[in-house]
Amino acid sequence: MKIAFLIFDKFTALDAMGPYEVFSRFPGAELKFVAKEAGPVRTDTGMLTVMAEASLDEVDGPEIFLIPGGEGNRPLMEDAEVLDWIRSAHETSTWTISVCTGALLLGATGVLDGVRATTHWAYRDQLAELGAEVSTDRVVIDGKIATAAGVSSGIDLALTLVGEMAGPEAAQAMQLGIEYDPQPPFDAGSPDKAPPAIVEFVRNLERG
Amino acid sequence: MKIAFLIFDKFTALDAMGPYEVFSRFPGAELKFVAKEAGPVRTDTGMLTVMAEASLDEVDGPEIFLIPGGEGNRPLMEDAEVLDWIRSAHETSTWTISVCTGALLLGATGVLDGVRATTHWAYRDQLAELGAEVSTDRVVIDGKIATAAGVSSGIDLALTLVGEMAGPEAAQAMQLGIEYDPQPPFDAGSPDKAPPAIVEFVRNLERG
Repeated sequence: MKIAFLIFDKFTALDAMGPYEVFSRFPGAELKFVAKEAGPVRTDTGMLTVMAEASLDEVDGPEIFLIPGGEGNRPLMEDAEVLDWIRSAHETSTWTISVCTGALLLGATGVLDGVRATTHWAYRDQLAELGAEVSTDRVVIDGKIATAAGVSSGIDLALTLVGEMAGPEAAQAMQLGIEYDPQPPFDAGSPDKAPPAIVEFVRNLERG
Repeated sequence: MKIAFLIFDKFTALDAMGPYEVFSRFPGAELKFVAKEAGPVRTDTGMLTVMAEASLDEVDGPEIFLIPGGEGNRPLMEDAEVLDWIRSAHETSTWTISVCTGALLLGATGVLDGVRATTHWAYRDQLAELGAEVSTDRVVIDGKIATAAGVSSGIDLALTLVGEMAGPEAAQAMQLGIEYDPQPPFDAGSPDKAPPAIVEFVRNLERG
């Protein structure tokens, strides 16, 4: 099973790395990080570089592909080559996935028009403007389009899809392999739970 | 604040990427991925390459350093250069961190002797053999040594340390930034919770 991670300058690492760590444990899965051009790709912090192993034109018909978030995907929302690759990959995919603001880039192709989808909580209005029916759920599956909320939510999404594809035992084995028994020291991971002042602080940081 | 991530051939990506994503949001933090030699480093799945930005001898006195797990750290348990670098970094660090089986490499330096520590659940006996007082907790802090259980637990550890260093509001802001409001679709993330047959299956996979 071929799984492509579309990366780009200034992507958010964990958006991709959470699902990568789950899907890489799927027997027979072939994961590939791809970008417009093969070679080093810098994340949004400027402090980490990941290699794209292939260029877009070298990757055809992945069963699953995933678009992570990160400020670097906004310029791609007007990049014909990237949009065409996404539309084409979506035509034949088993699952089309976005994590965090990856949903904005996915939405820019038009495939989220009228589709239930989610994104990082601070970008819900932008996703709605792209035609999606925005949900505040952490993981949303509508047909073969699976979208996750902010950054860390890709782990929950990947385990959900493994459960769909291979059954609950397979997903449980992967969950146990990565010892995903989360115990956050605080309960502030969503805008409904965090103190309002912190929500405003982070919203301003995110939206600039 | 200088934060070094010690990586090596066949490290487990998420062990490092979870804490990276949290610490990178710490104002003024300078994160650096370091290895014996600067350059491309392959993860344990063989399907992802991350760049080490510096060699060990270029990185001196990080305030925080983190050792991830992955089968590739076992050969380093007898590598004098790596062990010396860890011992030296530990002398001046504010926090010495391991995630998952990173604790085994940390333990090989002797610094876990008599220290409360944790690791991936399938490797607790190996950690005990290295002199640590093994805990089954997900995050363990003993003095300035902070250890986390398997793979995904590094996120909980990093948020805990941010809370210690900068207070709960800072940690809550980072938690909200990465929307860390975990909702695993199954409850099988620890050997106490997963069905026994799955625990045995994963233990055999892990221990080979």
